[in-house]
Amino acid sequence: MPASYAYLGPEGTFTEVALRTLPEAATRELVPYVSVQSALDAVRAGEAEAAFVPIENSVEGGITATLDELVAGEPLMIYREVLLSIAFALLVRPGTTLSDIKTVTAHPAAQPQVRNWLKKNLPDAVWESAASNADGARLVQEGRYDAAFAGEFAAERYGLVPLETGIHDAENAQTRFVLVGRPARPAAPSGADKTSVVLWQRDDHPGGLRDLLGEFSTRGINLMLLQSRPTGAGIGNYCFCIDAEGHINDRRMAEALMGLKRVCLQVRFLGSYPRADISAADVRPPLPGTSDEEFAAAADWVARCQDGRF
Amino acid sequence: MPASYAYLGPEGTFTEVALRTLPEAATRELVPYVSVQSALDAVRAGEAEAAFVPIENSVEGGITATLDELVAGEPLMIYREVLLSIAFALLVRPGTTLSDIKTVTAHPAAQPQVRNWLKKNLPDAVWESAASNADGARLVQEGRYDAAFAGEFAAERYGLVPLETGIHDAENAQTRFVLVGRPARPAAPSGADKTSVVLWQRDDHPGGLRDLLGEFSTRGINLMLLQSRPTGAGIGNYCFCIDAEGHINDRRMAEALMGLKRVCLQVRFLGSYPRADISAADVRPPLPGTSDEEFAAAADWVARCQDGRF
Repeated sequence: MPASYAYLGPEGTFTEVALRTLPEAATRELVPYVSVQSALDAVRAGEAEAAFVPIENSVEGGITATLDELVAGEPLMIYREVLLSIAFALLVRPGTTLSDIKTVTAHPAAQPQVRNWLKKNLPDAVWESAASNADGARLVQEGRYDAAFAGEFAAERYGLVPLETGIHDAENAQTRFVLVGRPARPAAPSGADKTSVVLWQRDDHPGGLRDLLGEFSTRGINLMLLQSRPTGAGIGNYCFCIDAEGHINDRRMAEALMGLKRVCLQVRFLGSYPRADISAADVRPPLPGTSDEEFAAAADWVARCQDGRF
Repeated sequence: MPASYAYLGPEGTFTEVALRTLPEAATRELVPYVSVQSALDAVRAGEAEAAFVPIENSVEGGITATLDELVAGEPLMIYREVLLSIAFALLVRPGTTLSDIKTVTAHPAAQPQVRNWLKKNLPDAVWESAASNADGARLVQEGRYDAAFAGEFAAERYGLVPLETGIHDAENAQTRFVLVGRPARPAAPSGADKTSVVLWQRDDHPGGLRDLLGEFSTRGINLMLLQSRPTGAGIGNYCFCIDAEGHINDRRMAEALMGLKRVCLQVRFLGSYPRADISAADVRPPLPGTSDEEFAAAADWVARCQDGRF
């Protein structure tokens, strides 16, 4: 297998910074791609071992380009996640002061995060969208715009200086990234894991979605994300991308997925992988009656009943 | 109240076409705004009687800019919805043939809808994004690009001709638009209505969302949309935009909303309004035990029990 990771480029964006926090990234060649789709296609085609892409943002919600790629096409699997706090720096050419700035640029996704700061500090600056935050920094370097919002780490690469740092309208602004590869056996449970699936309902009736969620809650499993995505069959037709606490090797999760497999039109398993937000020591113990031991004991008891040995 | 409707402009886009299907639009001045936010702010400020904006798309899902505006800020209410089938025409200057086309343009949202058509018919054409489909048509008129994807209705306005029509990668591609005003008494039930609400959970526990959905299903109410949106309090913190079948004046819907009001941290009522997808004659009758008459009879029975007269 080629020892390279594809990622959503270009170089010098938050995605690259997040990827480099993974220890395994140090031993791989990191190759930027122009879109989420092209990065994931590189994995599907065997050109890259895995792809690293954003999947969820605390301001904008699920990254639909990524979700839609995971929902459709040849199956892929999530192996790792990374959480990165997002704060912007205002990058300028050396010598520029705040009062010199007439035009600012960044990727459109940055706008909701810097809007209030702009209104307060640069109310008259004209906003121009860039293809990426790194590309915006490059355009400032070339003199096309006066300032760019980007990660502070991008300054050096483009010969710019941060005039202001830590810009973020929403507190706790974070982006979640995932490392995606071709399907294989998931890593063994770390003690703090998450399982991702996509569910398609068999039909539409009152309580239909509630019944599906019951497959989790009946077994004491908490949900971390529920994002509806259109199936493409017209308004009102959705599938559901779900993240649930736990690992497919947990008895309660395995039984919940079996239940969903029985009652759903289709279930796509997207992987069980370590959570980035919490370590094993801080995970809540399973609810009473939902531990592996209790599942095993219950199965044993039913078998004995079936055998007349209760 | 000023007799004008704000809408997501510019002129000549699908939004304007959808708005003009509403009979009441004929008697109002229709004023284009540059963004969903500015159109809704015009309503909040009393500059416009109502605003007409896209809210859901069968290819891209919920329009997050619109949902986030309805979720936050000064409350607004939905009064009408319109469904529009979306098919693109390839607009060119008169005399242009397919082999002349080196560059194409449109709003980025059009791209997933025309991607396959482009790959098959114009594999070498370079894509350039436009601020809107109408703006793309204008840029073709000016000679900046060779062809624009837009509604066929935009051709005449910009002196262009449709070289091809009915372009849509996904079958049944539709966009849903809503007419939004300041809160007031909803129109009386039409017999085929929809109720929109936003729910914030009190806390996060296994089955939490399932319990909220149970408030609907327990009363035989079907859901039409469930879209999670970030609350801004960090990854994993979501509120839920829900469309449910029925009108707040239906006993079952009123009781479901009362239940949600009791158990949720917060509930925002976004309106009860006629459905665009179905007429009253085609609405399924309520499930056994959930009609207004049965609710009234049950309340009467409990009152008699409390009175010792059962």
